[in-house]
Amino acid sequence: MEDKKRKIEVCFSPILFNEFRNPDAIAVVVDILRATSAIVTAFMNGAERIIPVETLEQAEKYKKKGYKVAAERDGLVQPFADFGNSPFNFTPERVAGQHIVYSTTNGTQAIHQASQCFKVVIGAYLNFSALCQWLIRQNRDIIILCAAWKNKFNLEDTIFAGAISERILTDQNYHTICDSTIAAIDLHKLAKQDLLGYIDKVAQRHRLRKNKLDDVIEYCHSYDLTTMIPGLENDYLVVS
Amino acid sequence: MEDKKRKIEVCFSPILFNEFRNPDAIAVVVDILRATSAIVTAFMNGAERIIPVETLEQAEKYKKKGYKVAAERDGLVQPFADFGNSPFNFTPERVAGQHIVYSTTNGTQAIHQASQCFKVVIGAYLNFSALCQWLIRQNRDIIILCAAWKNKFNLEDTIFAGAISERILTDQNYHTICDSTIAAIDLHKLAKQDLLGYIDKVAQRHRLRKNKLDDVIEYCHSYDLTTMIPGLENDYLVVS
Repeated sequence: MEDKKRKIEVCFSPILFNEFRNPDAIAVVVDILRATSAIVTAFMNGAERIIPVETLEQAEKYKKKGYKVAAERDGLVQPFADFGNSPFNFTPERVAGQHIVYSTTNGTQAIHQASQCFKVVIGAYLNFSALCQWLIRQNRDIIILCAAWKNKFNLEDTIFAGAISERILTDQNYHTICDSTIAAIDLHKLAKQDLLGYIDKVAQRHRLRKNKLDDVIEYCHSYDLTTMIPGLENDYLVVS
Repeated sequence: MEDKKRKIEVCFSPILFNEFRNPDAIAVVVDILRATSAIVTAFMNGAERIIPVETLEQAEKYKKKGYKVAAERDGLVQPFADFGNSPFNFTPERVAGQHIVYSTTNGTQAIHQASQCFKVVIGAYLNFSALCQWLIRQNRDIIILCAAWKNKFNLEDTIFAGAISERILTDQNYHTICDSTIAAIDLHKLAKQDLLGYIDKVAQRHRLRKNKLDDVIEYCHSYDLTTMIPGLENDYLVVS
């Protein structure tokens, strides 16, 4: 009986993604601090397309062609770029009506890896409820791909993956036998009692604080500021 | 100040191990259900050496040379093998004074991967306290390598990794900034209130039950039945 149900799985690192091969699934890419939070923000502020590119070389080529480019590595804005990947950089003045090229340490690579799936969408607290409702309506297997930190497991993405999984599994069409999903749900249950307090002990937080970039943490953990769900079409993200 | 401390990290899958490159560290290989529990049991019952081999072809070659061979895949004993990898198979009658060749789905591959570290040791609940005390005495960085399930994260290894990490971090020479370690500790804290109950929801448990191999679960979660710490020397495991 369970076999007829749709399954939800959580992948903790892009390196592990091949183990989840499922071309019929919807992949939800998650990079809470900060790529997917920034992408959702960009659309909230009127961006028309986000073009995720993996390498700085690609990003720089686009810049030379006249595109606006957001690019960082290890939390630092690249010299050739217009701005970095703090969500606060994606202001209406900069992004409304624009095609923005975007390259980050972890997030954009994860988007490209996920593109082998039926559909790729962008997940963040900012669009949480709308995303969960949309996912349930699609009635397909779901893989939540955590962008991680340089391929290593990270807690902030895992906890968000747990939040999505918990919500999706309230729908009786879904089940999971995936240990990663169970772990993510349990960690989310633990963290949600004091979400920002829990995130405080997270390694990414230390990295952001070191670079004085930790002002976005509270914003990136704000639920439901929008109902927009950015999705990959061809090589770029749009909200359809 | 923290930089002078030794660090402890948890690696959730052999596929991720390259991200933890640290030739000065001690690697603790963990495959609770069942490889590392079986290896510790074999030494408890008098085995002299365990020769971990990765492929069934290698195992079969050893068999032809006259070695006793334990080999399974997906929980099922291989036709050419003397027995499979249930700890209960490693009886004194079979293993005392013997060199045993051992190949499993996940565990032996993890042992070979870990061999790039300064030292590889075998961890299980069965030797938990002795292992932790020994690790602290070595005063080196520690990487706990979870054998996982076909490269996917599994809860039973993670929870044990959390138990080790929690204990090691009571020593003030150790610290961690690794999200995997924090997650493992938190999951262990959650699980330990009812360890067998928690393990009951674990995917590996379902796999073992399907193959009627779940009689070992309680045994594999028994603390401190021995003080032996199997370690890799050249290509085989011994207790020195």
